[in-house]
Amino acid sequence: MKLLVINPNISDDVSALIEREARASLRPGSELSIATAPFGVAYIETRAEALIGGYATLGLAAERYPGHDAVVVAAFGDPGLPALREALPIPVVGLTEAALMSACQYGGRFSIIAISQRIQAWYRETVDSYGLGSRLASIRALDEPLAAIGSVQQDQGGRLIELAEQAVREDGADVLILAGAPLAGLARQVAAELPVPALDGVTCAITQAQALVDLGRAKATVGSYAAPPDKPHKGLSRELATLIGRR
Amino acid sequence: MKLLVINPNISDDVSALIEREARASLRPGSELSIATAPFGVAYIETRAEALIGGYATLGLAAERYPGHDAVVVAAFGDPGLPALREALPIPVVGLTEAALMSACQYGGRFSIIAISQRIQAWYRETVDSYGLGSRLASIRALDEPLAAIGSVQQDQGGRLIELAEQAVREDGADVLILAGAPLAGLARQVAAELPVPALDGVTCAITQAQALVDLGRAKATVGSYAAPPDKPHKGLSRELATLIGRR
Amino acid sequence: MKLLVINPNISDDVSALIEREARASLRPGSELSIATAPFGVAYIETRAEALIGGYATLGLAAERYPGHDAVVVAAFGDPGLPALREALPIPVVGLTEAALMSACQYGGRFSIIAISQRIQAWYRETVDSYGLGSRLASIRALDEPLAAIGSVQQDQGGRLIELAEQAVREDGADVLILAGAPLAGLARQVAAELPVPALDGVTCAITQAQALVDLGRAKATVGSYAAPPDKPHKGLSRELATLIGRR
Amino acid sequence: MKLLVINPNISDDVSALIEREARASLRPGSELSIATAPFGVAYIETRAEALIGGYATLGLAAERYPGHDAVVVAAFGDPGLPALREALPIPVVGLTEAALMSACQYGGRFSIIAISQRIQAWYRETVDSYGLGSRLASIRALDEPLAAIGSVQQDQGGRLIELAEQAVREDGADVLILAGAPLAGLARQVAAELPVPALDGVTCAITQAQALVDLGRAKATVGSYAAPPDKPHKGLSRELATLIGRR
Amino acid sequence: MKLLVINPNISDDVSALIEREARASLRPGSELSIATAPFGVAYIETRAEALIGGYATLGLAAERYPGHDAVVVAAFGDPGLPALREALPIPVVGLTEAALMSACQYGGRFSIIAISQRIQAWYRETVDSYGLGSRLASIRALDEPLAAIGSVQQDQGGRLIELAEQAVREDGADVLILAGAPLAGLARQVAAELPVPALDGVTCAITQAQALVDLGRAKATVGSYAAPPDKPHKGLSRELATLIGRR
Amino acid sequence: MKLLVINPNISDDVSALIEREARASLRPGSELSIATAPFGVAYIETRAEALIGGYATLGLAAERYPGHDAVVVAAFGDPGLPALREALPIPVVGLTEAALMSACQYGGRFSIIAISQRIQAWYRETVDSYGLGSRLASIRALDEPLAAIGSVQQDQGGRLIELAEQAVREDGADVLILAGAPLAGLARQVAAELPVPALDGVTCAITQAQALVDLGRAKATVGSYAAPPDKPHKGLSRELATLIGRR
Repeated sequence: MKLLVINPNISDDVSALIEREARASLRPGSELSIATAPFGVAYIETRAEALIGGYATLGLAAERYPGHDAVVVAAFGDPGLPALREALPIPVVGLTEAALMSACQYGGRFSIIAISQRIQAWYRETVDSYGLGSRLASIRALDEPLAAIGSVQQDQGGRLIELAEQAVREDGADVLILAGAPLAGLARQVAAELPVPALDGVTCAITQAQALVDLGRAKATVGSYAAPPDKPHKGLSRELATLIGRR
Repeated sequence: MKLLVINPNISDDVSALIEREARASLRPGSELSIATAPFGVAYIETRAEALIGGYATLGLAAERYPGHDAVVVAAFGDPGLPALREALPIPVVGLTEAALMSACQYGGRFSIIAISQRIQAWYRETVDSYGLGSRLASIRALDEPLAAIGSVQQDQGGRLIELAEQAVREDGADVLILAGAPLAGLARQVAAELPVPALDGVTCAITQAQALVDLGRAKATVGSYAAPPDKPHKGLSRELATLIGRR
Repeated sequence: MKLLVINPNISDDVSALIEREARASLRPGSELSIATAPFGVAYIETRAEALIGGYATLGLAAERYPGHDAVVVAAFGDPGLPALREALPIPVVGLTEAALMSACQYGGRFSIIAISQRIQAWYRETVDSYGLGSRLASIRALDEPLAAIGSVQQDQGGRLIELAEQAVREDGADVLILAGAPLAGLARQVAAELPVPALDGVTCAITQAQALVDLGRAKATVGSYAAPPDKPHKGLSRELATLIGRR
Repeated sequence: MKLLVINPNISDDVSALIEREARASLRPGSELSIATAPFGVAYIETRAEALIGGYATLGLAAERYPGHDAVVVAAFGDPGLPALREALPIPVVGLTEAALMSACQYGGRFSIIAISQRIQAWYRETVDSYGLGSRLASIRALDEPLAAIGSVQQDQGGRLIELAEQAVREDGADVLILAGAPLAGLARQVAAELPVPALDGVTCAITQAQALVDLGRAKATVGSYAAPPDKPHKGLSRELATLIGRR
Repeated sequence: MKLLVINPNISDDVSALIEREARASLRPGSELSIATAPFGVAYIETRAEALIGGYATLGLAAERYPGHDAVVVAAFGDPGLPALREALPIPVVGLTEAALMSACQYGGRFSIIAISQRIQAWYRETVDSYGLGSRLASIRALDEPLAAIGSVQQDQGGRLIELAEQAVREDGADVLILAGAPLAGLARQVAAELPVPALDGVTCAITQAQALVDLGRAKATVGSYAAPPDKPHKGLSRELATLIGRR
Repeated sequence: MKLLVINPNISDDVSALIEREARASLRPGSELSIATAPFGVAYIETRAEALIGGYATLGLAAERYPGHDAVVVAAFGDPGLPALREALPIPVVGLTEAALMSACQYGGRFSIIAISQRIQAWYRETVDSYGLGSRLASIRALDEPLAAIGSVQQDQGGRLIELAEQAVREDGADVLILAGAPLAGLARQVAAELPVPALDGVTCAITQAQALVDLGRAKATVGSYAAPPDKPHKGLSRELATLIGRR
C-alpha cells in the first residue's frame, strides 16, 4: 500500500522529521510519499493558520492523491481533515484524531503536551469537535517562544518530559500524547522515562492509515461524507475542481 | 459606521440578495460594501466547500477590511469565522452565530430550516461548535435538488413554510431560523404566516455587527483571539501575510 | 423606541448607576424609563433572593410595560427573565444573557468577574441554564464583604482588575464580563487596562434590546414562549392577572 | 416527625388530592399539615406561573415552617425549590426531584407523562436543571384542554395509560413518572396495568422527605446552600424578612 | 421489611462496620442480614477488582435474596449494581447511587472524600455512569497507603476531615460524601465539625432501600430492566442460573 | 505477533464464526488463539449477562494470556474490557471500542445494527461510557426472537440490511456498525450493497489489536490503568490472584 503524507506547513525540516518517524511505522511493503504545503506558515498555532494550512492541504491532496491508498494530514489539530475525508475517494487520517483513537484504547483519560501556549485553544477545540472532550485530562504547553521549530525536541526535551510527568501526577492522565509534528519521534525516545504510554501523532496516524486500508471499506456514496454534490465553481485548480465535483 | 459584507460563494445573484436584505437592516448613517468570493462554489453545502469558502473569505477580508468597522461573513455555517475573528482588528460576525445569539433571546429552543438535505450535517456541527447543541430543536430541509440557487425562495417558498410549521408543531421550536444567504429576506416576508418569531442570518448578522461596533471594545492583545504570532510564511498574498503577521 | 429598565432590587443608588450606564448606550431617538423593585433586597446573591427579585420584576413589568418597546431585567443572573419573556408581548432582555451572547461573538471562552463569593453558584447555574456552560472559562469573585453596594467600583476597583487579569492569564478567558449592575460602567472605564474585550451587562442588554426591537419580530402565539394559557387565578394584581391571562 | 406540604397553586381540590395521597405514604408516627397558596393560578404550566407559584410558596413556607421537620413543595416542576432549600433550616423536597431520584434507583431511563402539551418545556428545563437530562427518555402529554383540573384522572385516565405504554414501547422508558399533583394517586391505582414501575411525585416526595429527616443532617452554614447573607430589604412579610436575613 | 446487605469484599471487619452503621439506620420493625463476598479482595479500588466483586455479589444475591424485600450492594462504586437490579425481582440499592440521590436533595454540587488516590478514577466513572458528572464538585483522597482497612477512620480521621473542609472551601461543595464502606459511621460522628451536610453511603443506602420498599412498585416485566431473557447457559450456580433465566 | 481472542460467551459456533472472521483480518506472520468462556450464557444481551461474561473473560485471560502480545474481548459491548486492560501487561482491545474508533475515522456519526431489541440499552451505555454518545446516530435492532444464534446472518440477513439502510436514510449515519460477534463477517459480505462504510467489531478489533502491538508502548506503571495494587484476596484462581496482585 502507498500512503501520501502531507505536511500542511511550509517547513521542510519538519517534513523531514515527519518522514523519518513515518518510515519507522511503515509495515513491510508499504510505501509513502511526503508533500509539503506550497504556501502557508512555518507551524500552525491558530485558527487562521489552520484555515490556510487546511486549504493548502486540500489543494495538494487533490493534485497528489492518485496512486495512493490513503492520505495522512500531518499537523496536530488536523487542518482540513473533514474536508479531505469528504472529498477524497480514499481514507484520510489526521495526527490528532489517530492519536486520540489510539489513546482511548490505552486508558481512560489522556493529556496533550504541546509546544506553545497559544496552540492550546485550537487543540482543545479539535478534541471537542471529535466529541472526546470528556476524556481530555489536560493540555500542558511550553511557555517560552520557540527558538527554531525544527529543533524543539533538542532545545526543550527536558521541559516537555517535565510537563508530561505533571500531567500524569496532577491531572490524572492515563495516556500522554506528545503533540505536533515537530515532536515526531520524541515519544519513541522518551517512552522508557514516562510512567504511562506516550504516543505521538505521526506514529499513530501512519498506523491507523494502514489499518483503514486493511479494512478496505468503500467510500460513502450517500450521507454527509459522500463526495460534495456537483455544482458551479470558479477559480479552483483543475484537480480540486475535479475532486469537488466528482461523484 | 461601515460594514464589509463578504459572500463566501461565487454567486453574484446571491450577493445581490444578501445586499438587499442587508441594506434593509442598516441603521441610518451606516454604510456597507459587499464583496463576492473570487473563487469557490455556487453555494456551500459541505465541509470541503466550507474550507474553500473560508479561505476565499479570509483572503478577501485581508484585502478589503481597511476602512471598515466590522466584517460580516455572509454564508450560513460561517465559513472561516473563527479565523477571521482572530486575524482582523475589527469585529467579525457570522450569519449562523448571529442568528443563534438572537434566537436565544426570543425563546428556549430553535429550529433551522435549510435548503438541502446535504447541508444539515455541516449546520449541526456549526451549532455544536458554538456550544449551543442543547438548544437546537431540529434541522429540517428541502429534499429536492435546487433548480437555481438565486430563486429558491420563489421556487420553494411554500415548502419552506411547511417545514417551518412542522418544526414548531412537532419538534417544539420556540424560534425559527430560515437558514442560508439564498433565503435572505424570506423571514421578513413570511413572518406574519408563522406562529413563532422567524429570523434570518443576514438580518441578524447586520444587526449584531452594528451592535458590536456600538460596544466599541478593543481587539484582544493576548489569549487565543489575539492576532496570530508572527512567524515565517510563504506564498500568501501581501495583504494576508501582513494580517497574519500583524501584532 | 422606548425601553423599560427594571432594577429587580430595592437599591436606588444602583438604579442610578444602571440608568447612567444605560443612557450611555442608548441610540439617538431611543428613550428609557427606569423602575426600581418596590420590595426585595439590596442586591441579589442567592436563589432565594433571585426568586423574590424575579417576582417583583414580573409584577412591575406587568404594570409598567405598556408604551414600551422592550424590557430590560437589570440584575446579573436575570431574575425572572424566562417568565417575563413568556408573559410580555414585547422583547425582554437580561444582563447575563445579553452579555453572554455578546461575549460569544468576541471569542471562544469568557470569564465572569463577580462582586461576592456567594453569588458565584447562582451565576454558574444561570450560565448553564442558557446551555453555555462549556464556554465559561471561570468565575472569579471578590472575597470580602462589601462595604456599600453603591460604591463597590470605587472601593474594590483595583481588586476587580486583578481578578480580571488572572482570568485571562490563568483560566484562558478570551473575553471578560464584569458582572452585576453595581459594576455598570466599570468595563467602559477600565477597558484600556485589560488585554481582552471587557463587557458589562447593562451596556450589552441595552444594545441587545435595541437590536431585538430593530428585528421587529412578532410575539410567539404557540409553543412554550406564547403567553400562558388563560386559567383561574386569585390574589394577583389586576395588571399581572391581565398579563398572565392574556392571549 | 411533622411534614409541611405546600400546594403552590390555589386549587383546593388539588390540595385535597395531594393530602390524600400524601397520607397514604406517611409512616406511622409521622404527621402532615397541608397549605394552599394564597395567590397564584389553578395549576402551573409555564415559567411565569412557576415564578408566581414559587414566590407564593416561599412566603407560605416562611410563615408556616416552624414546628415542622421538612417541607414538601407539591407541584411537579418544583417551583421555588432551590430558594426554599437555601432559606429554610429544615430539609425541603420537591415532587419532580424526589420522583427523579427514586426513578434513577429503579432503572436507566425514565419518561414523564404530563397533563398538557404546554407544560412539557417547563418540565424538561426542570429535569435539565438537576443535571439528569441524559436519563430522560421522553415526555408525553395529553393534547386536549383539561375540563377540570381536579378530575383529570377520571376524565383522562385511559389516555394517560396509553401515553405511558407508548413511552415504554417507543421511547425505551425503564420507569414511568405520572407527573403533576393532579395525578396524585393515579400511579398507585394503575401500577398493575403498566409493565414498568410507575411513580408519582407526591408519593416519592413524602417518602424522600421522611428519608431526609431520618438522615438528620444539619443545615449548611457555609457554601451556596447556607442561608442568604443578611442585607437591607424592604416590603417583605415579617416572616420572610426573618428567614432571608437569618444566619 | 427485611434487607439483605452484601459486602462485595472479603473483609469481615468491614462487614462488621457496615452492619453497625446499617443497624443505626434501620427503622423499627426492619431487619437485616449481612453477607460477605466468599471470594475477591480486601477492598475495591480498581475496575478489575470491581468486576470480581460485582460477580461475587451477583452470585451471593442469587443465593441469598429469597425472603428479603430489598438488597443493598455495600461497596462504594456499586459493583454489579445494574446487573443485580436487572436480575432480581426486588429493589436493589447501591452505596454510591443512594448517596448521590440523597446529596442532590441537600444542595447543588457534592464532593466525594475517598480513602485512596487510586480509587478516584473508578468513583468518577461511577458518578458519570449515573449521569451526574455535572454535579460532582471534586473527589479528594488520602494519599498514603492504608495501614489497615478496618481502622482507617481511627488512623486517618483528622486527614479525612481536612480533605472535606478543602472540598467545601476550594471546590464549592454544598454536600460531602464520605465514601467507602470502611468509612461507615464517620459522617455521623464528624457531622458537627463540618460546615455542610456530610453523608455516607451505608446510611443513605439503608434509608433509600427502605424508601423503595415503601414505594412498593412491581418489577419491570418489559424494557431493559426486566429479567434477562431465558437462553442456554452453562457452569452457573443453580441459583444464578435460575435467576438469569427467570421471567 | 500472537493474539488471544476470547469469546465471553459459551457458544462454540459463535467462536467458530469469530475465528473465521478474525483470521481474515490477520496480517502475515500474525497468529491467534481462540478461547471460549467456560461458563456463562449463549449470547450477552443484558447487564447481568455482561457481568458474568466479563468475569469469565477476566479469569480466562489471566490463565491464557502468557505468550500472547494482545488480547481481544470478542463480544460487542466489551464485557470486562476496562478490568482486563488494567490487569494485563499487554494491550487489550474490545469489539465495540475498536469499531467506534474506526468508525470515527470514516465519518461523523455512526449507527449500530443489533441483533435484539433488548441488547440496545447495554450497547448505548457502552458507547456512552467511552464518551462517544454524541456521535451515535442511532441503534436499530431486529425485533424478533432469534431462532439460533449461530445462524442469525442467514436467517435475518435481509432484515439487517434493511435496518442498515434506514439508519443511513432516516438517522443520518455516515458509517454503519453491524454489531455483535454473531454478525462477524456480514459487513464484509454486504459492504457492496450498502451506501456507506459498514464495519464489524471482529475485523476492527483484530486490526486495532495489531496496530496497538505495532505501537509497542509499555504498560502504565502509575495512574488508573496501572495494575491493581497488591492486597489481601481469597478464593481467586492462582492465575487471577497473580494477575491482580502483580505490580
